[in-house]
Amino acid sequence: MTAAAPLRFITFEGGEGAGKSTQIRHLANSLRAIGAEVVTTREPGGTPGAEQIRALLVEGGAGRWQAETEGLLHFAARAEHLAAIIRPALAAGKWVLCDRFADSTIAYQGYGQGVALDWLWTLRRHVVGDTEPGLTLMLDLPVEAGLARAETEQRYERMGLAFHRRLADGFREIAAAAPERCWLIDAARDITAIATDIRAAVTARYGIAL
Amino acid sequence: MTAAAPLRFITFEGGEGAGKSTQIRHLANSLRAIGAEVVTTREPGGTPGAEQIRALLVEGGAGRWQAETEGLLHFAARAEHLAAIIRPALAAGKWVLCDRFADSTIAYQGYGQGVALDWLWTLRRHVVGDTEPGLTLMLDLPVEAGLARAETEQRYERMGLAFHRRLADGFREIAAAAPERCWLIDAARDITAIATDIRAAVTARYGIAL
Repeated sequence: MTAAAPLRFITFEGGEGAGKSTQIRHLANSLRAIGAEVVTTREPGGTPGAEQIRALLVEGGAGRWQAETEGLLHFAARAEHLAAIIRPALAAGKWVLCDRFADSTIAYQGYGQGVALDWLWTLRRHVVGDTEPGLTLMLDLPVEAGLARAETEQRYERMGLAFHRRLADGFREIAAAAPERCWLIDAARDITAIATDIRAAVTARYGIAL
Repeated sequence: MTAAAPLRFITFEGGEGAGKSTQIRHLANSLRAIGAEVVTTREPGGTPGAEQIRALLVEGGAGRWQAETEGLLHFAARAEHLAAIIRPALAAGKWVLCDRFADSTIAYQGYGQGVALDWLWTLRRHVVGDTEPGLTLMLDLPVEAGLARAETEQRYERMGLAFHRRLADGFREIAAAAPERCWLIDAARDITAIATDIRAAVTARYGIAL
């Protein structure tokens, strides 16, 4: 990447129960209020095929897949999502707000499940290429609080506290290594305070008033 | 790989309708007749999870996936198959005969669908590692004859003659680049003649009389 303007591609990252989908709705409303066109989407998923891959990943027992397989499945779904949804929307001048993206694979499969980080970054460089998010909002919450808030009990929620602590540490390390792109947001506050911080991050990163 | 003895892992490759499954049965019988323990398996698939990934790949329309996605899905299924079936069987001293393996991904997604060959080889080195086949039998058949013989009309069969010509060329290029491992077998003959050639290849490669 050169010092080109950051893509209008904003990803929301963090552990379970951090309030990502609520905050995506708030930010989408704020952007639409100034006349922006906004696409909201999620990973794994976002296209019919990628949602079928998602079903393989979020359902079933915690030990259903080799960790290595799981990383490849996430990037397979991501390749689909990038080609069919994210890149066309950005090319049409739209904003894309995405619930989870490649940082989740680095955190969950790398820090959480032990897949080699350099291999996951190689996959990321190849699959994501120049379509790295312009801004990543890392919603940070103590692990216990997040798990207590998570609405459903699916595969990743069942992976245990030690796993979720490793991935919280992973998100913080990723954020520390990419301070221009990643904003750590304290998600242990009320919804309005978090939304205000997020608008401030968008204003600072893109030079637009929200 | 060092000059260690070739793994007792034999893969059968080639386009549609080349008679791979028939020849696997014949070779498995020949090996069992000399007291060997044999596991026969197939790709994509070979484990419950990998068979679910297979269903995503072999069903549906020809344009169902981005070619890039498809390569990642094949290697995801392969990681599963290697960890759960192939490596444990080899470690237990068994022979493994597999209907398709990584050469198929290089041929179909690389030569056939245009995914960058160097990227597919990077995935292969990472996912397959030291578990490269000791012997690969490439069943070579004119494309039209193979498609006419194929028993079912599934997704890859519907990809057109030009696609199947590219992958036949791909298999020949892969074989030419790995002459120790790959034996090109003329599959436009009767079953017994092909089986005789295959037993001769196994005898030559492993130093056992079949």
